[in-house]
Amino acid sequence: MLNYQAMDRTYQALGDRTRRALVERLTHGPATVSELAKGQPMSLPAVMLHLKVLEESGLVKSQKVGRVRTCEMVPQILSEAERWIAERRQMWERNLNALGKYLDQGEEG
Amino acid sequence: MLNYQAMDRTYQALGDRTRRALVERLTHGPATVSELAKGQPMSLPAVMLHLKVLEESGLVKSQKVGRVRTCEMVPQILSEAERWIAERRQMWERNLNALGKYLDQGEEG
Repeated sequence: MLNYQAMDRTYQALGDRTRRALVERLTHGPATVSELAKGQPMSLPAVMLHLKVLEESGLVKSQKVGRVRTCEMVPQILSEAERWIAERRQMWERNLNALGKYLDQGEEG
Repeated sequence: MLNYQAMDRTYQALGDRTRRALVERLTHGPATVSELAKGQPMSLPAVMLHLKVLEESGLVKSQKVGRVRTCEMVPQILSEAERWIAERRQMWERNLNALGKYLDQGEEG
């Protein structure tokens, strides 16, 4: 399980349209920084700053070979972010069901 | 489906430990602002600022009756946030499987 700071960084990284677009592109497989920048309406340095935030969050990792840096997704971090939300939604549904049953019993009694 | 700004706000709201703790508390059912503040190691105004961010993100709604404000979770927004992540993770898995099959064929041929 991710610690608090790691979860902060993950959701903060996802809280930006460009960074979500970069994650989405990387679901199709690894891509170089230039390839990632091509799809974005901003400068290469601006895209690199977004990639830095994604790397710091752990959602993306990269490797430089020669002059080319290639990025890829780290799906485990995405799964952790998904799990936290899913568990809270399920908790809420369970508590709602329990409340419903309680109210039903009240009507019957 | 949430628009880009709404998704930004949702993930940004979740990118803070205190706000996630407040969401977690609200999965057990509605609570007053004072009840929510009781569980947090910070002042009431600080908690209210976090609740404001949660309300602006749509994750939480509140209602004031007399002098008491009661907050409750809006599970739809949590579901939307979960869905976006789940879909990207599934996309990544599909593409990984497709790559695996492609490589298997190469080995057989």
